[in-house]
Amino acid sequence: MGLLVQKFGGTSVADPERIAAVARRVRDSRQRGDQVIVVVSAMAGETDRLLSLANEIVKNPKGRELDVLLSTGEQVTIALLVLALQALDVRARSLTGSQVRITTDAAHNKARITNIDTKRINTALSEGEVVVVAGFQGMSESGDITTLGRGGSDTTAVAIAAALKADECQIYTDVDGVYTTDPRLVADARRLDRITYEEMLEMASLGAKVLQIRSVEFASKYRVALRVLSSFEDGPGTLITSEENIMEEALLSGVTLNRDEAKLTMLGVPDRPGVASTILGPVAEANIEVDMIVQNVGDDGTTDFTFTVHRNDFDTTISILEKISAELGARAIEGDNKIAKISVVGVGMRSHAGIASRMFAALANESINIQMISTSEIKISVVVDEKYSELGVRTLHSEFQLEHA
Amino acid sequence: MGLLVQKFGGTSVADPERIAAVARRVRDSRQRGDQVIVVVSAMAGETDRLLSLANEIVKNPKGRELDVLLSTGEQVTIALLVLALQALDVRARSLTGSQVRITTDAAHNKARITNIDTKRINTALSEGEVVVVAGFQGMSESGDITTLGRGGSDTTAVAIAAALKADECQIYTDVDGVYTTDPRLVADARRLDRITYEEMLEMASLGAKVLQIRSVEFASKYRVALRVLSSFEDGPGTLITSEENIMEEALLSGVTLNRDEAKLTMLGVPDRPGVASTILGPVAEANIEVDMIVQNVGDDGTTDFTFTVHRNDFDTTISILEKISAELGARAIEGDNKIAKISVVGVGMRSHAGIASRMFAALANESINIQMISTSEIKISVVVDEKYSELGVRTLHSEFQLEHA
Repeated sequence: MGLLVQKFGGTSVADPERIAAVARRVRDSRQRGDQVIVVVSAMAGETDRLLSLANEIVKNPKGRELDVLLSTGEQVTIALLVLALQALDVRARSLTGSQVRITTDAAHNKARITNIDTKRINTALSEGEVVVVAGFQGMSESGDITTLGRGGSDTTAVAIAAALKADECQIYTDVDGVYTTDPRLVADARRLDRITYEEMLEMASLGAKVLQIRSVEFASKYRVALRVLSSFEDGPGTLITSEENIMEEALLSGVTLNRDEAKLTMLGVPDRPGVASTILGPVAEANIEVDMIVQNVGDDGTTDFTFTVHRNDFDTTISILEKISAELGARAIEGDNKIAKISVVGVGMRSHAGIASRMFAALANESINIQMISTSEIKISVVVDEKYSELGVRTLHSEFQLEHA
Repeated sequence: MGLLVQKFGGTSVADPERIAAVARRVRDSRQRGDQVIVVVSAMAGETDRLLSLANEIVKNPKGRELDVLLSTGEQVTIALLVLALQALDVRARSLTGSQVRITTDAAHNKARITNIDTKRINTALSEGEVVVVAGFQGMSESGDITTLGRGGSDTTAVAIAAALKADECQIYTDVDGVYTTDPRLVADARRLDRITYEEMLEMASLGAKVLQIRSVEFASKYRVALRVLSSFEDGPGTLITSEENIMEEALLSGVTLNRDEAKLTMLGVPDRPGVASTILGPVAEANIEVDMIVQNVGDDGTTDFTFTVHRNDFDTTISILEKISAELGARAIEGDNKIAKISVVGVGMRSHAGIASRMFAALANESINIQMISTSEIKISVVVDEKYSELGVRTLHSEFQLEHA
């Protein structure tokens, strides 16, 4: 018996039949004696339907009114889910973000939660009701409807769990947990029972799309126990928690693959102070996010400066570099958008030396050339030719025996 | 230059293109210097779409959650309309019923407005914005979303016009005004420039479906000047106002036809006190609305008791009468669901005698037999055989020269 926040995403509530299935799952929790707050997204496809209506009226709709429009998506779901719960004789009540009083800043379309009023939720819970809350939305101080940006329902769930000091925040999704790597790439990829917030953050930022980064950050900050489970089958899922709650530390948690990046190099740049900012300043001004950065100083007084951006930004970045190339006196610009970033992640790295060298040796053994390297405290990433994507991931998964717990 | 409330129904905002057309109409009003509050319904078909989703989950959905669901329909429209206005460089802001603070009682699905807070609307107007308000919805004292029942957007518009003391409440619809009779029946039916609240109420209750009865009652009570206009073509429409604002009183305003009723008669009922309530009590208990009632006392101590109900209730009513027939000692029950009710309406009746006899003579002249008669201060209704529907309407329209102003 505990206090649970259960979050169901768009595919889990895609149609009335699936909504009824969610209602049965919530009823089962109630029957086990748990108090339940459910957070739901818009039905799959609904947000896109609303966006396309708006797009027929104005190109690239945004601002206050877009939030008024999109917030109806979750409002439809909460009403339907409560009707489904009531049909199962489960007492329930829906609340929009405004009704809960999920206060946010006024940054429409990408607002941040500043406060959650727990009064109305607690009243309903104390009256024995399941509370069904619209995810993704809140209300600004001035009473305007805001949205947290796409995927924001996870954040709503974690924030409510934090505010209510819930025992667990359960994120129901279309996968049954977090895996050591993409099971479509590696047949013996293994579902992790537990993983730390830090590892999950690295995995998410490296392209594993199970959870939104913001919701994991939020959970980490407020020490909310987060569990990823499948909406469609029973199972324990993966618990994301703090390091002290994980008894036996595995060396590594997972191997991730990111094929969304492209690499750019400025060759023969004079090696003098301010070069990096001269190159990256105009890129940042164009709102292009830079991921990995590597600079090697040669012995001829010049340096090669390499960085990666999202593949969609490749052409724009090339033309920015061409403009500043003359100014810098660079020898040439090279670009490559057929790369892959492979990373190993694990808090075990902190206490175990030699992981990097094992990783590089294993790749060398398969004749995979490493183009760039970047490391953090619990992660090592390498950039390789895109054609080695699957081979690289499988090699590392096997090298570190991730198929075994 | 005035303060206008403009209401656009579901067909007027059925798709993004029509919403853009509404935006242009509102912009034109702004450019003439008017301050404008726009009230909109859900896009045509949207309420039915939402209802059918709910119906897949539970048969006959109702109560609090149905209101949470259905209120999203208007919320989508207000956001799209404001986006369309902004695209025309018209400053505008949307408000849901809850955001305005349209307070209602707690009767979900058929709530009544108890108060309208004008603060937020007035602030936006004073900042030069068009205010776009979601019709049909409000908020109960406890902060729950309520809806006013179908067609409630007209009521929202009139209530806001009353609260703001607007100069005019303009109801845009798919007809260009109120006609002397149904133009599909009578080719030279004439659009009325003006009509009184009382006449409009009689016309609406007699089956002319231009406006919701509740909104006309509301307008009458608060003396809101109401204008019916077409969304699709320009024109002055019909102004519905109080009698003192109509200079030259026409004799009659219109002829209406209602083919939705059925007639039932209990023959040879003993003429003693309490008979009417013995007959109509069980009918009322079955939630069947009775319209016309006629009782003729014969000279043999018995009476024939006749009344009309909606055609859908005909069979149920027959079986109710059969049950009480023996108890009352009635001779027989007769039913006829092939009848039509034809009415003439006009405040001129108050000051002009002889309208009834002219009406009856005109019908007799065409050999149309009158089965029942019912009168009010400004209306005379007759029940005739359904086959005389069109002939009867045309005869009376011509007799009273309604084609001429």
